[in-house]
Amino acid sequence: MSRMQSLKKIQQTCGYDFKNINLLEEAFTHDSNRVNDRTIPTYQRLEFLGDSVLNLIVSEHLYRSHPDFNEGQMTNKRKELTEAVKQAQIAEKLNIKDYIVFGQSVKKEQFSRYHSFIESLIGAVYIDGGLDASRSVIKRLWEINDNSNTAANTSCVIS
Amino acid sequence: MSRMQSLKKIQQTCGYDFKNINLLEEAFTHDSNRVNDRTIPTYQRLEFLGDSVLNLIVSEHLYRSHPDFNEGQMTNKRKELTEAVKQAQIAEKLNIKDYIVFGQSVKKEQFSRYHSFIESLIGAVYIDGGLDASRSVIKRLWEINDNSNTAANTSCVIS
Repeated sequence: MSRMQSLKKIQQTCGYDFKNINLLEEAFTHDSNRVNDRTIPTYQRLEFLGDSVLNLIVSEHLYRSHPDFNEGQMTNKRKELTEAVKQAQIAEKLNIKDYIVFGQSVKKEQFSRYHSFIESLIGAVYIDGGLDASRSVIKRLWEINDNSNTAANTSCVIS
Repeated sequence: MSRMQSLKKIQQTCGYDFKNINLLEEAFTHDSNRVNDRTIPTYQRLEFLGDSVLNLIVSEHLYRSHPDFNEGQMTNKRKELTEAVKQAQIAEKLNIKDYIVFGQSVKKEQFSRYHSFIESLIGAVYIDGGLDASRSVIKRLWEINDNSNTAANTSCVIS
């Protein structure tokens, strides 16, 4: 499968088509690629941004779908939904390791921080398509089935 | 000055008119009002949400206006821009203490956590007007003068 076909596949899985495919490439480029060229953009800046996007989308989901939750309950639930172990599950489900471009210094089979690329993917979607697109991708990946963007709903299902 | 005139004034200062003024009232209602009625909505749920909104807006601002920053530099700068002391300065500038509704158990002159109401205010703007309105209010209050929502710009001024 060519790189373009491969990237097409993950976009289909996420339910989002990038206008600027370079953002998706950047999200999947490990910093080990920068050894010989410090100007190559790698995933970390998008990961920084994606972390904030994920945080807001999950916070908003909890705020709207759980009008009965106080701030402490929402904080605990958000932690559960955004922690690395949850993102690692999603990375596994997406086979994200098949998409990451490493430099020569990293042995792919020994690498374990694939969860980081879920946030860089979300950051890339945000820059490419904005908050609504990010919300849609996150709810799809997290399997959040509710109408929390439009109305309060306490019967949501979170996998 | 009546309560409505008072709330009009802070909306003018923020550059945002609420469609649902009850959200602004909720943002400014301290939880000491709930002593006799646990169903009264108070600021904390909006503060929880506003914290995430502020985090994203500042992250996006740094991502776009500082393409030269790595994730560590952005994290440090975000901390500086979002910490309680910065929010306390803004609360002071807005005279936010004049707007807060306390229950009888709190002595207004002894209360010191006014910075919390900046985040609840931001959360209320987000629910009422969405992300663009929140960005506009935050940039106004934080005195961030750039075009970071539309183009990379390294000449931003942050007060």
